[in-house]
Amino acid sequence: MMSTFSLEQIRALDRRYRANLINSLAGFKQPVLVGTQSTQGQSNLAIFNSLLHIGADPALFGLLFRPHSVRRDTLENILETGCYTLNYPTVAMLHQAHQTSAKYPHDRSEFDAAGLTAGYRNDWPAPFVEEAPVQIALSLAERLDIQSNNTILIIGKIEAIHFDDALLLPDGFVPLEQADILACVGLDAYYQPRHITRLAYARPDEPPASPDH
Amino acid sequence: MMSTFSLEQIRALDRRYRANLINSLAGFKQPVLVGTQSTQGQSNLAIFNSLLHIGADPALFGLLFRPHSVRRDTLENILETGCYTLNYPTVAMLHQAHQTSAKYPHDRSEFDAAGLTAGYRNDWPAPFVEEAPVQIALSLAERLDIQSNNTILIIGKIEAIHFDDALLLPDGFVPLEQADILACVGLDAYYQPRHITRLAYARPDEPPASPDH
Repeated sequence: MMSTFSLEQIRALDRRYRANLINSLAGFKQPVLVGTQSTQGQSNLAIFNSLLHIGADPALFGLLFRPHSVRRDTLENILETGCYTLNYPTVAMLHQAHQTSAKYPHDRSEFDAAGLTAGYRNDWPAPFVEEAPVQIALSLAERLDIQSNNTILIIGKIEAIHFDDALLLPDGFVPLEQADILACVGLDAYYQPRHITRLAYARPDEPPASPDH
Repeated sequence: MMSTFSLEQIRALDRRYRANLINSLAGFKQPVLVGTQSTQGQSNLAIFNSLLHIGADPALFGLLFRPHSVRRDTLENILETGCYTLNYPTVAMLHQAHQTSAKYPHDRSEFDAAGLTAGYRNDWPAPFVEEAPVQIALSLAERLDIQSNNTILIIGKIEAIHFDDALLLPDGFVPLEQADILACVGLDAYYQPRHITRLAYARPDEPPASPDH
């Protein structure tokens, strides 16, 4: 049966219940491990579920941060160094990836705490996660402050992509599921997506069909 | 074997190949059918893969639009009426949902073209998709123009949520997979996510565990 939450009902909900409801209704997301390094050389790793495709040319990804009212190592490192990495956790890395969300002391690296390996490539001043089958280097391109709730959208420019080339299809598509890359919902639920189909570019009055790639 | 695309290599790629590569690397997404109505009363429905959770209190979702250089019915209707809906397609609705991305004439409703049912609830001036197990009413809260590539982030405030109450767990989490809700990658690949686990809030030096809900 269809049930309704009105604005007033949503506002009256218990804080945690509302967070679960609204976060889960935001749907399936790509969790990414964001690697940064402070200007003092301290590495940091944190899981985010707010990755947004901004554009392909130039290649830009967005990442949403909560208000900068408390210490936020990842955001501060990105703003100070201009460099970060995105690393895609697999099913086998699930527990390690989630553990990076714990609030560790400032001087402890989440790489060590979670048992993941920091890797450095091509002099990029932010660490990659060696275990991740897809690793992307980004540079800070733009910062947008969202007035509605003081969150911050960081736009990053893709500087380099490192990935298992067995994953690359002839048309440029990367079938992430073949590397067992995780999806998530909200802050605590993890999923393994099963591929159904790819569909051809839709045209008016033509039935949808699977493309021949 | 790990393979690398440098910034120069990404720039030199064929346009479609690069779009496939960058879009698919943005990972698993929640496709949503965005329902709007023009000030002339013409209903419109279009699939988007750029849903972003902005916050739970107030409950805000973002949606990214490409540059407003050509006619964009959905964006124009949102800016003119301030009202829209998000509707979550299921596996059974896959072909109909994808078909809404075809470029129909301005005076043809994608509801009719794709064979989906426009529903109106509580005098909300934008149509819902009756077949969707989750339907959300949003009002325009904020517009952000992204300088890096002229895309537009529309922030919407959740005004009402309509959904199958069999889906609601005691802590507010909505297990979308139980309604066969789709995930997607890029512009043409569709997935059915299989639930793996939910994990407890991570704490330093405690191993991750599944919560008891």
